[in-house]
Amino acid sequence: MNSLIVRRILRGEVASAARLMRDLDDEIPSARAALRELYARAGRAHIIGITGPPGAGKSTLADRLVEAARKAGKAVGVVAVDPTSPFSGGAVLGDRIRMQRHATDEKVFIRSLAARGSVGGLSRSVFDTVTMLDAMGKDLIILETAGVGQDGVKVAGAAHTVLVVMSPGQGDDVQALKAGILEIGDIYVINKCDHKDSEQLARSLGLALEGAAPRDGWTTPILKTEALSGKGTAELLKVVYEHRRALDGAGAWERRSLNMARSAFMELLETGLRGFINEECEHGAECRKLFGALASRKTDPYSAAKTTLRKLLKKSPPAPLSKRGDNPSFRKGGRRGI
Amino acid sequence: MNSLIVRRILRGEVASAARLMRDLDDEIPSARAALRELYARAGRAHIIGITGPPGAGKSTLADRLVEAARKAGKAVGVVAVDPTSPFSGGAVLGDRIRMQRHATDEKVFIRSLAARGSVGGLSRSVFDTVTMLDAMGKDLIILETAGVGQDGVKVAGAAHTVLVVMSPGQGDDVQALKAGILEIGDIYVINKCDHKDSEQLARSLGLALEGAAPRDGWTTPILKTEALSGKGTAELLKVVYEHRRALDGAGAWERRSLNMARSAFMELLETGLRGFINEECEHGAECRKLFGALASRKTDPYSAAKTTLRKLLKKSPPAPLSKRGDNPSFRKGGRRGI
Repeated sequence: MNSLIVRRILRGEVASAARLMRDLDDEIPSARAALRELYARAGRAHIIGITGPPGAGKSTLADRLVEAARKAGKAVGVVAVDPTSPFSGGAVLGDRIRMQRHATDEKVFIRSLAARGSVGGLSRSVFDTVTMLDAMGKDLIILETAGVGQDGVKVAGAAHTVLVVMSPGQGDDVQALKAGILEIGDIYVINKCDHKDSEQLARSLGLALEGAAPRDGWTTPILKTEALSGKGTAELLKVVYEHRRALDGAGAWERRSLNMARSAFMELLETGLRGFINEECEHGAECRKLFGALASRKTDPYSAAKTTLRKLLKKSPPAPLSKRGDNPSFRKGGRRGI
Repeated sequence: MNSLIVRRILRGEVASAARLMRDLDDEIPSARAALRELYARAGRAHIIGITGPPGAGKSTLADRLVEAARKAGKAVGVVAVDPTSPFSGGAVLGDRIRMQRHATDEKVFIRSLAARGSVGGLSRSVFDTVTMLDAMGKDLIILETAGVGQDGVKVAGAAHTVLVVMSPGQGDDVQALKAGILEIGDIYVINKCDHKDSEQLARSLGLALEGAAPRDGWTTPILKTEALSGKGTAELLKVVYEHRRALDGAGAWERRSLNMARSAFMELLETGLRGFINEECEHGAECRKLFGALASRKTDPYSAAKTTLRKLLKKSPPAPLSKRGDNPSFRKGGRRGI
């Protein structure tokens, strides 16, 4: 039952892919069905996540990786997620424009997504785009995401190989990075390595990573690049390939692919539930009654949420408002729940 | 049925408040019950949200507002939420230390919360702390949150008066701020007003805000401060009080209070649902089966999420995976759902 647009995208036709993306944005049901067909046919691309603090040079590095991969004859897709911050974002447009030098290369497909307003940022549209690029036959898909909020961490569940990019002289305290970011990288990249403080950063990072157990048969390397001039970027791509071989060797490739599908599933589920709650509370009479009780402080938000959960869910939720699933850093004691 | 700890906190005893916060973190059920009692007795404090980009001087400004409010004999609580970014955060600790000069003043209660790992940042622990400070009889509660990710926007649903703080020379493009941040401020503050570019920033901001309709009988002012020296901060506090009077006059105070309770309710509901999903998928046999089907691409994350939603919820979800509730910026067309 492959529709025409699906066949065209499977052949790698850019115009059809662009149309599908537009139709998905417009929430046209047939587009959703087409994506489902594409999903069944996807699963071959090597997905490379790039994360790191603003200004580390992620976009420039992505651009260089595209260049190196194209030289080796690979088809490449790029998904760039803008910072979620309503404040920063100044340099982003310039970076995108820089990457446009690949725009005339039909083997390169670049899509920028604004994460603004989205919860998590790396959400549904990223998943859609990656699925489509994968089905188009891209060998590599680069997923570039600003290391703001949860995005930097979420990229770990959305890629086979995670590059964490840092640069010297940004005042990044490696200590501060320890929380989270030192666990997600498969390859650490010190960009702007011609900067005088790059050795210092490499040393601190090396110390911070010291003693970490190899994961999936892979010991995390620290590489140096100067993306602006292209220095070290071809070597970086080689190490990315090595990581793939290590994953294959350790039988971890499939597990990471499944993990990506699972992350997407969990996120879609949350989105669906959120939409459901909003719908209920906009139109439901019960919710209005509840809000009245809240206004008079006859009930409190906790009790109200508990009652509502019981009403919405078929099964009774197990300690639904325990901090589990919320913020692990707040959980100091046992799991007694409420 | 007021327990001893509740009575003590209602009298404003700091040690009891600190113990309750600890017990809440440890998820002790009696602590939760105590907070519910406190919630019923709270509702008098004026909650002031402070948001803005990193480096704008939010903490210093908060510190000065505490000083000014103390001079006027007000009891003050401060809740400071650290940036969610795993990267930045360098200056934060220093800011906190600066504020510690109020730590020996028993009429000032300061609590810093790490948002790291939390979805949204301004979550449950913020709500708990604000409720407790309110019940303790604090006249003002300052909720300071880094303008990273969604936090800056969420503060709008968690405060009576929202201050948006900016400073010149940060390369902030007012155009970029337009998305979201220009709708949430009740008072705009240009901090570091001795900087040569502060006039320019004031003009751009003024233009951006021009023509905005008064909200709740209040036309948004732009104030200038130099928080480091204290310049303009006493005036700022006066304008904060004026805003309260305007809200009272327009009958908007109660509405904002209810809106805050409602935001807390919605967030708790989401947290509960998220915990429920995680629980189901960790231990449920059905979820395991689903993941198997995902691995073999016999199903896709969308279909899997849809099926699961139907199984979890009593009512059938209305277009559960439509982009509604997800990312409005992606929604260009109609609301056809899937």
